[in-house]
Amino acid sequence: MIGNRERLVEAASELLHEHPYHAVGVQTLCDRAGVRKGSFYHFFGSKEELTIAAVERAWTAYRQGLDALPLDDYPVEKRLRLIVDNCLASPLVYSLDHERLVGCPFGRLAASITEEEPELRDRLAEIFTEWLGLIAAACDGDSQVAWSTLAEIQGTLLLRATLEPTKRPGS
Amino acid sequence: MIGNRERLVEAASELLHEHPYHAVGVQTLCDRAGVRKGSFYHFFGSKEELTIAAVERAWTAYRQGLDALPLDDYPVEKRLRLIVDNCLASPLVYSLDHERLVGCPFGRLAASITEEEPELRDRLAEIFTEWLGLIAAACDGDSQVAWSTLAEIQGTLLLRATLEPTKRPGS
Repeated sequence: MIGNRERLVEAASELLHEHPYHAVGVQTLCDRAGVRKGSFYHFFGSKEELTIAAVERAWTAYRQGLDALPLDDYPVEKRLRLIVDNCLASPLVYSLDHERLVGCPFGRLAASITEEEPELRDRLAEIFTEWLGLIAAACDGDSQVAWSTLAEIQGTLLLRATLEPTKRPGS
Repeated sequence: MIGNRERLVEAASELLHEHPYHAVGVQTLCDRAGVRKGSFYHFFGSKEELTIAAVERAWTAYRQGLDALPLDDYPVEKRLRLIVDNCLASPLVYSLDHERLVGCPFGRLAASITEEEPELRDRLAEIFTEWLGLIAAACDGDSQVAWSTLAEIQGTLLLRATLEPTKRPGS
């Protein structure tokens, strides 16, 4: 049996996956979780705090996908290709019904928050930094190549989500 | 003297430049423009419609910067570099006080709207398509190179806005 905290994280993961941060309120999150507002504030100080918990969970899942890649078996260029393809095809970039590409959960969130969510912004910056580090480790520490690779991932997901959200990878 | 319609477009350009779409309401736009709500609905059917007018204006300005580049004087690789540098350094990617990189106005908007703003989404998709065409024209019609170049622009702006918003270009 899952508790109210976990229900709220699950609700935030789902709702913020398809809706922009400012389009989802605390009441909507509570309704989705089937949890009362008092219980929300028992676990989380704010929507920002709950969102950070949802982001942690998504990042753990995303990173597991990256960690599982057999990078050691390949030369640098192929390793980077595997990383890019893994990120572009991750279930986390698709809508909950898997029908539509919605974009990178971290990139979309970063693009849709403001100076008024400083802790969430800091956490997303840390995730991007960690992600850059993982990519750099796969290309002998070349941080410029890591940066362009992550920029390619983010830019490609943004363009695809806008221009061809329903096209399947490889088609 | 500028009219109420123009004031509203100006207010939307400013407010949506620094705030996500769903964080700005019609009343806030009217207050900023010094215009009454009745006047808003005389000119625009919805916030989405006003946003499209603001996006048109931004795109016209952005494209003028691209059109003014002396691309014919250079070989393809240098042309693409000029286009990328121009997009990354455009005043439109900075906050109104020019102190902070906020990201691409079109990319950020595309990342922060939903299925509930279909006309705005379509207009942004058209802008990206036009942008891809402009880049393709600079690289002898190579649409794959155009796509990676625009992805590089979008991804770089997103990463910079998250990781180093106050760093100046070239520093």
